[in-house]
Amino acid sequence: MTSNISSTEKSPFELVSPHLEKVETQIREQVRDFDPGVEPYMTYICDTNGKRIRPTLAILTGGATGELTQGHINLGVILELVHMATLVHDDIIDGASTRRQVPTPNAKWGNGMAVLLGDALFSHALKLSTDFNDLELSRAISLASREVCQGEILQTQRRFDLTVTKKDYFRMIEMKTGALFAAASGLAARISGRDEAICEAMHGYGMKLGTAYQIYDDVVDIIGTEEVTGKTLGTDLEKGKLTLPILNLLDTATPKQKEKLTKRIIEQEPLDLHILGGIADYEGAVDDALKTASQLVAEARGSLSLLNASEFTTALEDITLYVDQLLKSCR
Amino acid sequence: MTSNISSTEKSPFELVSPHLEKVETQIREQVRDFDPGVEPYMTYICDTNGKRIRPTLAILTGGATGELTQGHINLGVILELVHMATLVHDDIIDGASTRRQVPTPNAKWGNGMAVLLGDALFSHALKLSTDFNDLELSRAISLASREVCQGEILQTQRRFDLTVTKKDYFRMIEMKTGALFAAASGLAARISGRDEAICEAMHGYGMKLGTAYQIYDDVVDIIGTEEVTGKTLGTDLEKGKLTLPILNLLDTATPKQKEKLTKRIIEQEPLDLHILGGIADYEGAVDDALKTASQLVAEARGSLSLLNASEFTTALEDITLYVDQLLKSCR
Repeated sequence: MTSNISSTEKSPFELVSPHLEKVETQIREQVRDFDPGVEPYMTYICDTNGKRIRPTLAILTGGATGELTQGHINLGVILELVHMATLVHDDIIDGASTRRQVPTPNAKWGNGMAVLLGDALFSHALKLSTDFNDLELSRAISLASREVCQGEILQTQRRFDLTVTKKDYFRMIEMKTGALFAAASGLAARISGRDEAICEAMHGYGMKLGTAYQIYDDVVDIIGTEEVTGKTLGTDLEKGKLTLPILNLLDTATPKQKEKLTKRIIEQEPLDLHILGGIADYEGAVDDALKTASQLVAEARGSLSLLNASEFTTALEDITLYVDQLLKSCR
Repeated sequence: MTSNISSTEKSPFELVSPHLEKVETQIREQVRDFDPGVEPYMTYICDTNGKRIRPTLAILTGGATGELTQGHINLGVILELVHMATLVHDDIIDGASTRRQVPTPNAKWGNGMAVLLGDALFSHALKLSTDFNDLELSRAISLASREVCQGEILQTQRRFDLTVTKKDYFRMIEMKTGALFAAASGLAARISGRDEAICEAMHGYGMKLGTAYQIYDDVVDIIGTEEVTGKTLGTDLEKGKLTLPILNLLDTATPKQKEKLTKRIIEQEPLDLHILGGIADYEGAVDDALKTASQLVAEARGSLSLLNASEFTTALEDITLYVDQLLKSCR
């Protein structure tokens, strides 16, 4: 059983911080492995500060399932590099000119160069994965990477498509976000040499946490305020991405209401996202989405029951509580 | 020693043809491994007919270094998928609307979708590479893939850059084209279980052949006619890519001539590619490039001296003679 949550002395962020520093250093060291002509570009890309959620999961799971080793750090680095490569490509797709207040590679060097830089980073990450001398692990990392791409493809393909079901939505976000979270925690357990049951439980932990986090992100996109989040919001609806709050709303709408929603969502006329968000909130569609996410977070927490008590296990629990807090802040 | 070239009964293309059919079938079968929503896109991408040079090299080397096995076919499939992924991305970068008379993925579904489809194909290919149960092989394939990206990055970065040296040029084309050719023949020898000397010799064969082939392609871009090649030509100079004939020309130019070239190449004013091609031809810069390529082809042929005589070895020799013919046709 896991230890009492309230007794934790360090926050998961304090616990992981010294190890994340190693991740940061290693990410920046990767640039040396590129051609001198390519290095400056990679330095720019690798010098950004992400939230490093995937390395955090790899590190905490590493500590919670055995002894935290260099292998767990490496796993975190590789998954973060894959994630960074997808961000470089996402920014091209979205035509984004800044990310975290910094000009995107496509804004700095054009789309063509950004495509190639993402590719080079991606193939570098997959090359690094072979250093584990564990083919299953390499395979799982390239599979997870493929899942991320496929999730994005499905979501792009089904923009402005009112036949998207909740099942479709969950499949898309499991691929798009869940896959790398699940790889982080699931493969960290594998690196610790734990048995199939623990590896699967930890894979489930990451998958559920990632899915819940994506729902949170999707809710914020609809009802958040840009002042608080510091992000451009309402982009999902603008791009015709139907996320859980909207799917919930469509589910409970009368035929007449559905017609109105269709006009607002598909024809974007009038596309007043504040009003659409207001309706989704009023009808309980946002609350329902948050409830679903909260349930997933609870299930993620449940996946930890096989682990021995340790500060790392507590931290993994605390992360679920942290996401719960995020969800509550939306209510 | 290799057998007498003139005694060959089958052309390399006849010899490889039944095996290439397997490659074609397998390439088309890959689509089943994708999500049903992604499958139709992949079917479209996998249904195009390339020259399949990389699988041809993998197959012929497989036969020439041992028994041709399914592993050699798989290697050909994986390298062709990597190549196809890079073509999907190249077409975005070049804004190409057709390839081999067929609309490109970016023309059909937009740049964003094409970025993702290339990524998914790429990660799929690297996933397939783990099925060899040979980590060195997986690592070599992701390294070769990274080289291709880096070669493209360097070439993009150094467009309109008159400080590009021949050494830079060779490095770029070795990465861009040589790396996958070298992986095809070098790793095929590895799959046959041959020793380091043979693997290196065959790696060298592919590298030299690929480099020579790229020089041929670069020469055709300058002096070829679109009626004969069926390709849009002069694109390198338009994009500011300085290829070997132009680098040769710059090498022998007087300061005054250099000034004129700079105007034509960098300021593209006047950019009459026919005239530039004519000058390069007149000054012997094209011939010199062809000579360099011919020398590389001869070296590639020399790499075969360690192999036992067989129809496959003869076919590998014949391919070098075929490239020699291509080079002669430019004179």
